Amino acid sequence: MTTAKRDTYTPETLLTVAVRVFNERGYDGTSMEHLSKAAGISKSSIYHHVSGKEELLRRAVSRALDGLFAILEESGATDGRTIERVEYVTRRTVEVLTTELPYVTLLLRVRGNTQTERWALERRREFDQRVSELLKAAVADGDLRADVDIRLATRLLFGMVNSLVEWYRPQPGGPAEAEQLADTVVQLAFEGMRVTR
Amino acid sequence: MTTAKRDTYTPETLLTVAVRVFNERGYDGTSMEHLSKAAGISKSSIYHHVSGKEELLRRAVSRALDGLFAILEESGATDGRTIERVEYVTRRTVEVLTTELPYVTLLLRVRGNTQTERWALERRREFDQRVSELLKAAVADGDLRADVDIRLATRLLFGMVNSLVEWYRPQPGGPAEAEQLADTVVQLAFEGMRVTR
Repeated sequence: MTTAKRDTYTPETLLTVAVRVFNERGYDGTSMEHLSKAAGISKSSIYHHVSGKEELLRRAVSRALDGLFAILEESGATDGRTIERVEYVTRRTVEVLTTELPYVTLLLRVRGNTQTERWALERRREFDQRVSELLKAAVADGDLRADVDIRLATRLLFGMVNSLVEWYRPQPGGPAEAEQLADTVVQLAFEGMRVTR
Repeated sequence: MTTAKRDTYTPETLLTVAVRVFNERGYDGTSMEHLSKAAGISKSSIYHHVSGKEELLRRAVSRALDGLFAILEESGATDGRTIERVEYVTRRTVEVLTTELPYVTLLLRVRGNTQTERWALERRREFDQRVSELLKAAVADGDLRADVDIRLATRLLFGMVNSLVEWYRPQPGGPAEAEQLADTVVQLAFEGMRVTR
């Protein structure tokens, strides 16, 4: 007779396991059975904590989205010259991405098959829209190039930033390394790679 | 009694269908049954053309890789000042990505579970490496910033370029629109978004 491991999970630790499995197998490809095996507890124990895998998804992507939206309320994002606010938001987005890596990874892979996924996509678009508006204001200030389509620039900027989830893995270097990464992203996005003469 | 559609496929047209299904369902999630249904021909008809789904994958990613590696042989990539060659390769990579969109999309989603996938990943790394060397040479020429880690810069550059597959869809505007897109990518990557004063 096999006995399930004693359930010492909290919704928080269960979330950690679920996010790992979602990222490995894809959300669609993950069953409650997979989650139960990965957590080492029975399905009914999981149902004791959450209503099902969609609730775990909602909690996980909420954590990523809360992290991102919180940036927009920080004084660096609300005060000062717009171009500085844009650069601040870009830098902080990279930082949130590195500290909340599995959660943001999951958010970026959401496809829109369920209500929670569609809600997450909607919130992501909202965040992009807020940043896009900042970029537009910085163009109006004369600080960002007026000859670039802002919608396209926003997409390319997030394309660069979000691509980090494909290869960035936290190192023992830790926060210092993440900060250097954020510096480089801001530098490349706003100053470009060419030497200014 | 149901009869399968008459097999009017060539390996080429079968490839088009297979790539669409691979991109929709993921390569791992696609069975010969799925391909047979999507193509409207029997599995044995498919086996008449190819040895199985891995051969279709190999043909598909080869098409993307051949397109990318061909860039490196073009005179714009081999002659002239290195910084111009770097910008040329970036511009052409965007163009190949837009013209071979489903094939490059599939290539970028390859995960490494099969021999063909591992080979594709290896070839991708080789391409990135070639571009990385060009960037390094342009730094040595004093044309690209020396204060940026080249490996990181290459990753961010490709992060931006490759993110196009997530949202770019060819429009009636066609080639002109794709060209404008390539211009913007080169402009942002090398000159940055900020106005130079």
